Amino acid sequence: MSATAPDADSHLISPLETNLIERVCVGDIVLRSADVYPNSVAIVDGDRQVTYAQLNAMVDQLGHALLGLGLQHQDIVALAARNNLEMLLCYFACARAGLICMPINLSLRAHEIAFCLRDAKARVLVADQMLRGLIEAACQESLPELQRTFWFGADGIDAAQDFNALVAQGASQPLEVLVGDRDIVQLLYTSGTTANPKGVLTSHLAVTIASLSNAIMNRCTEHSAALVGLPLFHCAMLNSVAVPYLTVGGKLVLTQGFEPATCARLIDAHQIDLLVWLPMMYGLWLNDPAYQGRTFASVKRAMYAMAPMPPERQKAIAAMFPNADVILGSGQTEFTPATCVQRPEHQWSKAATWGTATVMTRVAIMGEDGQLLPRGETGEIVYRGPQGMRGYLNLPDESRNSFRHGWFHSGDVAHMDEDGAIWFKDRYKDVIKSGGENVASIEVERCLLQHPAVVDAAVVGAPHERWGEAVIASVVLAAGHSADEAELLAHCRGLLGGFKVPKAIVIATEFPRTGTGKIQKHLIRRELSEFFKNT
Amino acid sequence: MSATAPDADSHLISPLETNLIERVCVGDIVLRSADVYPNSVAIVDGDRQVTYAQLNAMVDQLGHALLGLGLQHQDIVALAARNNLEMLLCYFACARAGLICMPINLSLRAHEIAFCLRDAKARVLVADQMLRGLIEAACQESLPELQRTFWFGADGIDAAQDFNALVAQGASQPLEVLVGDRDIVQLLYTSGTTANPKGVLTSHLAVTIASLSNAIMNRCTEHSAALVGLPLFHCAMLNSVAVPYLTVGGKLVLTQGFEPATCARLIDAHQIDLLVWLPMMYGLWLNDPAYQGRTFASVKRAMYAMAPMPPERQKAIAAMFPNADVILGSGQTEFTPATCVQRPEHQWSKAATWGTATVMTRVAIMGEDGQLLPRGETGEIVYRGPQGMRGYLNLPDESRNSFRHGWFHSGDVAHMDEDGAIWFKDRYKDVIKSGGENVASIEVERCLLQHPAVVDAAVVGAPHERWGEAVIASVVLAAGHSADEAELLAHCRGLLGGFKVPKAIVIATEFPRTGTGKIQKHLIRRELSEFFKNT
Repeated sequence: MSATAPDADSHLISPLETNLIERVCVGDIVLRSADVYPNSVAIVDGDRQVTYAQLNAMVDQLGHALLGLGLQHQDIVALAARNNLEMLLCYFACARAGLICMPINLSLRAHEIAFCLRDAKARVLVADQMLRGLIEAACQESLPELQRTFWFGADGIDAAQDFNALVAQGASQPLEVLVGDRDIVQLLYTSGTTANPKGVLTSHLAVTIASLSNAIMNRCTEHSAALVGLPLFHCAMLNSVAVPYLTVGGKLVLTQGFEPATCARLIDAHQIDLLVWLPMMYGLWLNDPAYQGRTFASVKRAMYAMAPMPPERQKAIAAMFPNADVILGSGQTEFTPATCVQRPEHQWSKAATWGTATVMTRVAIMGEDGQLLPRGETGEIVYRGPQGMRGYLNLPDESRNSFRHGWFHSGDVAHMDEDGAIWFKDRYKDVIKSGGENVASIEVERCLLQHPAVVDAAVVGAPHERWGEAVIASVVLAAGHSADEAELLAHCRGLLGGFKVPKAIVIATEFPRTGTGKIQKHLIRRELSEFFKNT
Repeated sequence: MSATAPDADSHLISPLETNLIERVCVGDIVLRSADVYPNSVAIVDGDRQVTYAQLNAMVDQLGHALLGLGLQHQDIVALAARNNLEMLLCYFACARAGLICMPINLSLRAHEIAFCLRDAKARVLVADQMLRGLIEAACQESLPELQRTFWFGADGIDAAQDFNALVAQGASQPLEVLVGDRDIVQLLYTSGTTANPKGVLTSHLAVTIASLSNAIMNRCTEHSAALVGLPLFHCAMLNSVAVPYLTVGGKLVLTQGFEPATCARLIDAHQIDLLVWLPMMYGLWLNDPAYQGRTFASVKRAMYAMAPMPPERQKAIAAMFPNADVILGSGQTEFTPATCVQRPEHQWSKAATWGTATVMTRVAIMGEDGQLLPRGETGEIVYRGPQGMRGYLNLPDESRNSFRHGWFHSGDVAHMDEDGAIWFKDRYKDVIKSGGENVASIEVERCLLQHPAVVDAAVVGAPHERWGEAVIASVVLAAGHSADEAELLAHCRGLLGGFKVPKAIVIATEFPRTGTGKIQKHLIRRELSEFFKNT
């Protein structure tokens, strides 16, 4: 018995109740939108449309079902999916259940996917039946932590592996478990300076702040509709488009792959106001019969990622979308991801820049001594802000190094002008950004060195109209060995995800080296920088 | 010596460095805007204009100076200011220094201000010279914790009390101290069901989420300008207008008091796009020569607070601001404060509602048993969301009670319709909302009972065109005593802040009571509800 009688007005509030009131949880985003816009369409996936109320109910059900498998707080659920309803359903169900969702990059090869699954100790895998070949190949490797795999997208799947049967097992009441602001909600693997992909751990708070920031920048409302034209397993689409639109009650229209006629139809049918494509995709579409001579008045913002595009292409895009700002956004997975976006008033005058800092992001230029540099001086781009990652999974040294001097280090070199716009110059880290993907030079170099004829390999990025940067390799052959470009390319294709395979391999007699024998890659980069100029 | 040689790439990151990278701190808002928009005007205060770079430098300097006074993390700095530059400067300097800013409600009487200063244990007070009479009267009471007072707004102030001299003492380098997401950034006193005002403690995270949410709803950008026409010591102006606009790099144009001609000039001069006024202020201005027959095309949103307004007035406002949505926002200090805002498409069809939940806020209707009710059923409005307060200062039981059943209890009774719109019905808590201020009935009742002639007092709110609700009292006189309304009103004016003084006092012979003798206030409220109908 308590020494004092309880006051009629005093109530014990449990830790869970306190958490439910005040927390920042990505799973709550769909819940709130379902409160306010229950009958609005949240997601259009081909012939399927789900309202917010329906999506929210499915999220509860799948969340319960996942926890019913015995998964513990912050366990990892891997997800192999194209842009479809199940992808977003899994993402939000994990978020609400306090689990970590790990969307798999489908450009990776089976053995790379196996590496990620093993590194993450993923316990459950949800996969699209259409990807069965790739995923089963990955699962042939030793994955001792992986306990269950569920498939969706086909009939007649064995009940124990049927995703729809899993969902149906879940209770329908609201799923309410403790979730901390800085618990992890997503794990995305990104290529970096290391040979293996690095797992980027991102918190509920980071995803939420990024979502609100993007909603402000893209002026999206409950009447907005975005075309989800790039893969959702990239955080550009997931965190800069999908989550923000669902936060404000807007509509997501999913597409898979390049189908100009389909996209044109969807833009009209859903009065799409936001597009995010790569420069090369705009290029392909500009020339497609589905777009020739057409204009799309509903589009308010035609964003592009990766790298500035030629002015003529930008003008052609502006003509096709007469009410749209045509602007570049840049960023990286470690910052969830948008760090800079061009301001509309800079879209022509500063089209060659990366834009200025996004809402809630600080961007600065740092010298090699860790001091911030004044405007106009060149150094490394560094970031601060609550949308930053918590760290790389299993890589404490890499994580600490990326945050040295109290800022996140991008590895990109630039100066900032008087308006805060970032003028990219070079890259510190040995990473090539090709077609929206990061490629670690070292990984491609190691692959080439596995070929018996290759004694030295240097892999760099060269400017390329379609890919932004294209992977290009220079190799030195071993004395007495021979190999031609085609043979070496075939070798790479056998070992590397498609986007990592060099677009060209040049055979050199020797490499420029420093006095201590280190390869001078900047000289090789300069030499190859014109390689694709006329292709 | 360490057993292993340090890796060249491994760095120790201090807790402060980690905090600076990832924290959510209201002080960083101005810092980021100064990065991106250094030369844009942040604040216009009469003849004074400051850019973001200037504001940011002053925030650093004042923050250093405050810490130089010996203030510790989360100490309280009280602020008695009208809408001026110093007000916002102090607010952000406290935020960046890890101190708590306590803006004083200037509608309070001296002894009420003294109560707040004492309750908060404020250690430093910054005050406008124009308020010297009121503030010095408050400081005549025993305030053992208050160590220093600084005045601004006049020349010739003694150096030890001169705010400008204080600022000048501060170092100019960036101020970087540890600040936690859920540390307190502001303390605002609000009247509630208790006789004394309650101190609402609000975190950096809450203010930041509220800021982003309001920026989304009001579509503000770096080109936006808001007229700050209501007092900044209210969180409606501070957290729904000032902080959001400064977050996105917009401009704040400050005004003090009712000056229609000045407001008209400022709206034109600064192309104001957001107005937030009370219905009665719009009413006054509609009839003022400065506005007669005028239209203001720059205004995109004319918000009003407190209570729905008559349709004719809303139509007149819409005619004056032809490009504006004329919409109601509602909320409370405990939720920083916007909880519901009318959607633009509901501004006519659902003008009588309180609107729908703001971004990041969950709104629900709860029965007396703590269960949420379905659409259409009437119960108490309850809230969840990270923009909620941390609690009431020194009132743990009140805090717990307000969060019972895992939701914040508004004390307002309503139902929610199929669109999520809130139809207000009644109030559980004995609070009157008059002219944008909360008045606790009990406080006014106690005041009346101090008059020798009064034996019973019941204070309620009655609908009033100008005040939304007006405070009205019914009293029963002691046998053998007499007093008329004028005498009782004079008695109240001597003891209560102006907005708490009843607009009318009715003398009754007896009160309706329950079987157990409790006054049936709902019957008195009903009886008096028509009192102001034709005034």
